Amino acid sequence: MLRIVMKFGGTSMAGIERIRHVANLVKREAERGNQVAVVVSAMAGETDRLVQLCREAASLYDPREYDVVVASGEQVTSGLLAITLQGMGLNARSYMGWQLPIRTTAAHASALIDGIDVDVLERVFGESGIAVIPGFQGVAADGSVATLGRGGSDTSAVALAAAMKADRCDIYTDVDGVYTTDPRIVPRARKLSAITYEEMLELASVGAKVLQTRSVGLAMRYNMPIQVLSSFEDRPGTMVVGDDRIEDYKMERQLITGIAYDKNEARITLTGVPDRPGSVAAIFAPLAEANVNVDMIVQSVPRAGERSDLTFTVPTASLAHSKALLEGVREEVGFQEILTDTDVVKVSAVGVGMRSNAGIAAQMFKALAGRGINIIAITTSEIKVSVLIPEEYTELAVRVLHTTYGLDAEAAE
Amino acid sequence: MLRIVMKFGGTSMAGIERIRHVANLVKREAERGNQVAVVVSAMAGETDRLVQLCREAASLYDPREYDVVVASGEQVTSGLLAITLQGMGLNARSYMGWQLPIRTTAAHASALIDGIDVDVLERVFGESGIAVIPGFQGVAADGSVATLGRGGSDTSAVALAAAMKADRCDIYTDVDGVYTTDPRIVPRARKLSAITYEEMLELASVGAKVLQTRSVGLAMRYNMPIQVLSSFEDRPGTMVVGDDRIEDYKMERQLITGIAYDKNEARITLTGVPDRPGSVAAIFAPLAEANVNVDMIVQSVPRAGERSDLTFTVPTASLAHSKALLEGVREEVGFQEILTDTDVVKVSAVGVGMRSNAGIAAQMFKALAGRGINIIAITTSEIKVSVLIPEEYTELAVRVLHTTYGLDAEAAE
Repeated sequence: MLRIVMKFGGTSMAGIERIRHVANLVKREAERGNQVAVVVSAMAGETDRLVQLCREAASLYDPREYDVVVASGEQVTSGLLAITLQGMGLNARSYMGWQLPIRTTAAHASALIDGIDVDVLERVFGESGIAVIPGFQGVAADGSVATLGRGGSDTSAVALAAAMKADRCDIYTDVDGVYTTDPRIVPRARKLSAITYEEMLELASVGAKVLQTRSVGLAMRYNMPIQVLSSFEDRPGTMVVGDDRIEDYKMERQLITGIAYDKNEARITLTGVPDRPGSVAAIFAPLAEANVNVDMIVQSVPRAGERSDLTFTVPTASLAHSKALLEGVREEVGFQEILTDTDVVKVSAVGVGMRSNAGIAAQMFKALAGRGINIIAITTSEIKVSVLIPEEYTELAVRVLHTTYGLDAEAAE
Repeated sequence: MLRIVMKFGGTSMAGIERIRHVANLVKREAERGNQVAVVVSAMAGETDRLVQLCREAASLYDPREYDVVVASGEQVTSGLLAITLQGMGLNARSYMGWQLPIRTTAAHASALIDGIDVDVLERVFGESGIAVIPGFQGVAADGSVATLGRGGSDTSAVALAAAMKADRCDIYTDVDGVYTTDPRIVPRARKLSAITYEEMLELASVGAKVLQTRSVGLAMRYNMPIQVLSSFEDRPGTMVVGDDRIEDYKMERQLITGIAYDKNEARITLTGVPDRPGSVAAIFAPLAEANVNVDMIVQSVPRAGERSDLTFTVPTASLAHSKALLEGVREEVGFQEILTDTDVVKVSAVGVGMRSNAGIAAQMFKALAGRGINIIAITTSEIKVSVLIPEEYTELAVRVLHTTYGLDAEAAE
């Protein structure tokens, strides 16, 4: 007997027919003798609709009341799934975040989970019952409904799995697992049988948005195995596990696990930045205060004391705001121009195996140079090498790197 | 300073523009220095949509889970109205049924209100705040969400008004008050400035569905004045009050307050019913057990010991079920045929003044006979006379009676 959390996203819950299909998957798991808690998202599109209503009601809406409104989406799907499971003869019931309770901080619209009481769940499992729980929400100490922010249902599922000491957290979504890269770009991309938390974090943060980053971080902290799989196709997905368990899934270890890309970065170049102590600090301070996520930074000072150019990237959505903030310190810092470019892409090679292999980055630069692709900026971490390149080269760069690191699947027979 | 509950129905809450209008009405009441609690329905059509989803999920759905699903509609409008009020600079917050709490019985989907804790509300009023409360729902003793049944928001509003000892409960709807009859049939129907609870109950139960019957009964029990008014037109509505207060509204008392009609009745005639003790009891027992609301009953026994015909009405929705139940006792009772007719209408004259005037019924029969309208059945109560007639005569009968009892408004100048 295993104890499992099953989490279903918005496309899996979009309409009664799909909910019925989800119920069949839950039933099958229950009939294997497993203890099952189900975490559900709102129907696809519903949260967007509710958010839009809040925005129309007031441009600066109270996040506490926003939470009241948007939490209703998962409430509806929880009830509907419980009804559907009961219709199949299963002993199922829904439990809202405030009923368990799932205790959160009071940071409405972006609350953190403080803890989950599992007494109710233990009783449900004791009675061979199935608990259906709305994702994305809990209750703050003052008794108000609080949501975890967009995509929070993955986090709800992992937190619940950790609290109830589950054996596994299955995240059902509309893709059947994590791939070596985007199969739309590289048809010979391979589905990975397993991947470590750290690799998943790097892949997610650079564009492979299969799991919410926060949920992966939480799973890593509790060493909770996650399985990413499709609710529409009946086959194993990708296990996301700790370094210590990756061998269990018999994956041939490769240096590089996957190639990701992210078009959602904009380049900012400040020209003529004076070379004096504090210049760079004065530039980045206002961005940090405004929570702008500055990513790749390149500065080359030709000679000590000379002016130089400073290039860095910010999320495209923060570009306008960032420009305004930088204008505010232009005089103080004394740089000349602010140049921006949104036609750039960040391409990354990710892999735990990289830690013990110094040649990975060099291999990348050589492969890209071989295709005449100009590199604007580079960042590296322990398990990732990223380059910023012109956006028009996205597909070419991803394909070249996928082949370079030996990720292409064998051609179909 | 008055303490007021304002209740807004589904059409008043249908979309952000309308919610903004509602917020303006609330603001105006608050700016008069009044203490205001607002009870809201779901957006028009939303509850139907949610009910339909439950039905699709399972034909026999668990009412506990149904409540989880359908309660979301008012949760959304509560949050949106609170956001809108805040956007206007008012100190507003929403409180779900489980947050106040509004305590109910565990009869899911048709729960009764056990009590309402007003501590939170008193604190809100003490801080010059406005409380927005979803109608139609509360929380059962086991902590589960429970709804009051369709139309329950009126009941929520009146119960809340009683609990917080409000001066008045204003029910905003899509009509501007209670009329002497349906203005679509009688253009010269007049809006009543005031009506008693009992009259309202009779008018409501026979077709003038302005207020939920249950809410009127509750208002009567607590002698809570209700005002029915339009959220779309800025003028006083109709006060629904106790006999003791009706004079306050300077209404010229008339014998008859209004003429109602109800096409939702079906006639059943059993032919050849044997005249022996227990026959009638055996016929109505299964209907009573099945909660079929038998209304008008006519039996004439030509001579002692002879067979007779028994005619009565049931709601049209219960007709098929009633026929099946009656077939089940046909042999036992020994009647001959079951004849049914849905092309009938019940027309009623309602008025507290009737109590002290015996001629009302005779006046009705004479007026209908004068137009050649055949009366199938008659029932009377202290403040109502109803006749069952062929449906094709509905408009004619209503107009004739409206004129007969002197209800026609003066012709416009």
